[in-house]
Amino acid sequence: MLEQFKVQPEDEVRVTEENLRKTVEAVFSKMGLDDSDSALGADVLVKADMRGVDTHGVSNMLRSYVTGYGNGELNSHPNWTITRETPATANIDGDRGLGIIVTPKAMDIAIEKAKNVGMGVVTIHNSRHLGMASYHALKAVENDMIGMCMTSCPPGVLPTFGAEPVLGTNPIAIAAPADKEAPFVFDAAMSAVAGNKLGLARRNGTQLLAGWVADHDGSPIMEEVDPPTPGYEGSASSYLLPVGGTRELGSHKGYGMMCLVDILGGILTGGGYGMSPGRPNFGHYVAAYNIEAFMDTKEFKRTMDEWINMLNSSKPAPGHDRVMYPGQPEHEAVIERTEKGIPLHYEVIDWFKDICGELSIPFSLV
Amino acid sequence: MLEQFKVQPEDEVRVTEENLRKTVEAVFSKMGLDDSDSALGADVLVKADMRGVDTHGVSNMLRSYVTGYGNGELNSHPNWTITRETPATANIDGDRGLGIIVTPKAMDIAIEKAKNVGMGVVTIHNSRHLGMASYHALKAVENDMIGMCMTSCPPGVLPTFGAEPVLGTNPIAIAAPADKEAPFVFDAAMSAVAGNKLGLARRNGTQLLAGWVADHDGSPIMEEVDPPTPGYEGSASSYLLPVGGTRELGSHKGYGMMCLVDILGGILTGGGYGMSPGRPNFGHYVAAYNIEAFMDTKEFKRTMDEWINMLNSSKPAPGHDRVMYPGQPEHEAVIERTEKGIPLHYEVIDWFKDICGELSIPFSLV
Repeated sequence: MLEQFKVQPEDEVRVTEENLRKTVEAVFSKMGLDDSDSALGADVLVKADMRGVDTHGVSNMLRSYVTGYGNGELNSHPNWTITRETPATANIDGDRGLGIIVTPKAMDIAIEKAKNVGMGVVTIHNSRHLGMASYHALKAVENDMIGMCMTSCPPGVLPTFGAEPVLGTNPIAIAAPADKEAPFVFDAAMSAVAGNKLGLARRNGTQLLAGWVADHDGSPIMEEVDPPTPGYEGSASSYLLPVGGTRELGSHKGYGMMCLVDILGGILTGGGYGMSPGRPNFGHYVAAYNIEAFMDTKEFKRTMDEWINMLNSSKPAPGHDRVMYPGQPEHEAVIERTEKGIPLHYEVIDWFKDICGELSIPFSLV
Repeated sequence: MLEQFKVQPEDEVRVTEENLRKTVEAVFSKMGLDDSDSALGADVLVKADMRGVDTHGVSNMLRSYVTGYGNGELNSHPNWTITRETPATANIDGDRGLGIIVTPKAMDIAIEKAKNVGMGVVTIHNSRHLGMASYHALKAVENDMIGMCMTSCPPGVLPTFGAEPVLGTNPIAIAAPADKEAPFVFDAAMSAVAGNKLGLARRNGTQLLAGWVADHDGSPIMEEVDPPTPGYEGSASSYLLPVGGTRELGSHKGYGMMCLVDILGGILTGGGYGMSPGRPNFGHYVAAYNIEAFMDTKEFKRTMDEWINMLNSSKPAPGHDRVMYPGQPEHEAVIERTEKGIPLHYEVIDWFKDICGELSIPFSLV
């Protein structure tokens, strides 16, 4: 994570994984989820926090989930069903279930299909936010498979040359097992930054970097700028730019990848896309690749170690002390947070105090 | 294509698709390929030219293929074999066959598998350059399927924070059918620009844009710069940057996508990766999604039209007259080039004259 998006030590309280997990489980339980779904939801959120993916952890996501369950937008007991199925594929109607609950079950189906026929792809329509996409990809890794996850999100990002945010941030995650090294895990929005980085910047009082957002007319802002703030008339809109920022720097590639996700995670699920009217919020795509279907799994994992070492031992550019591989910073965050706890902004702690009071949950975070 | 990479009218000769196809077929035939493979190879190259993808068309690729067949690096009669297979997947040993010949056959297998079990993924190791990746993805579209193609290339691109080009440009292509509109076709290297843009810039005497290459130490060059030229000591190295250019602008996302391709198209094929020693040049990945396995195909194509119209009718940013979708510029190039012919640089025409003389092929391009 970029330095300016880290919670500053003076603003943070460290909580243990166990305490956070217990509290989040209790909140989900009060929302009406059964015990195993409450534990699953807590696992998805807390794993994001442990991996340092604060944008998709408890502090950024739980309150919107609580709002969704509260106003009936989210179904706490989704009766999800398979609408089409073949030996390698399935399409699921998520019955307005939160993606963090339904998607792991879709990935279980994909893994089973990959065991049987080499490959499994499962899409989900009529679902909602799925949390950290790599959570689902990592489920395949636990089964010695390669996992992939994409999600078609509500609009917020400009197409290249566009002035209307018609596409979502549409993240792609892929995870692959290594032998001795931590797994490869790539997980990123195809916008220049994840949408909730704007909120994080507001909360932390930091600026947005060049190439992240456009002005109100759609022109890319190519210098640091204050985040858009309700009631304050700044130059930055909340329109995100695709990865690359401008056409010259390659934004058409970010735009194309956003489209790819909108097709596979949106249109192909039958559940809407981009800014289609009345769309359910999110469509998902998960895939599991049975490595053994292509080559010897042991040999694959050994080669992954070799490949990781190639990257780690390659020469860094001036001003940098090492070259990392995707998944490595998150693996290091797990080690650090296991030892020192998860940093939560005091404002998040306050929210927990309030919501625990409201829901009659004993507050035991700190 | 960016304006400065177009062949300038004063330097170009327009040739018909038919003449170019005939001549390229004759060249492949002289390289020892049988008639159907010669026609296939010509189809892959000429379709790239027709679509305006000059970087992967006849002018940029054919001479290196001729060199490869000439020095024995390429096998003109590859006895390719399936090394592992399941109902949804296969892995192929390409027997040093050129990717433009072997990959279409792999895609045929993927399509057949998708017909049978919903989804087909075929990887290829021990192969060589596959031309325009979207050619292969588009084969699925002809079968009313979604197609994907990736290729793990020899090293040339820096990882984020790195000073050694340990990864390839690793393009990703995906194509999906629409109903009345031209198909969606995304096809892009995960480096900021395709590798042979450097050669094109040298040939056209134009500068490289900010964020495309690094200096010799690995620091991203964030201003326009002369392309690296043998014998001339400029600031630009030939080390390409990932899409995004710098970490702040999102180069870690381009880097992550390059890794994804290196894993699925390289490591998973068992045929090497990045800069692994002694690797064969290229590993490939193709996938076909049977739309009918997920939803009604007619409804999918109708929705694709709707989605395309959403993008096309969205408001453009200042300085731009419209918002296009991936595949639209290439579709328009086909219309223009069908009418006016394919523009070839006079230097390419000269090469054809020479090679036709050398191989005793009647020169009938113009």
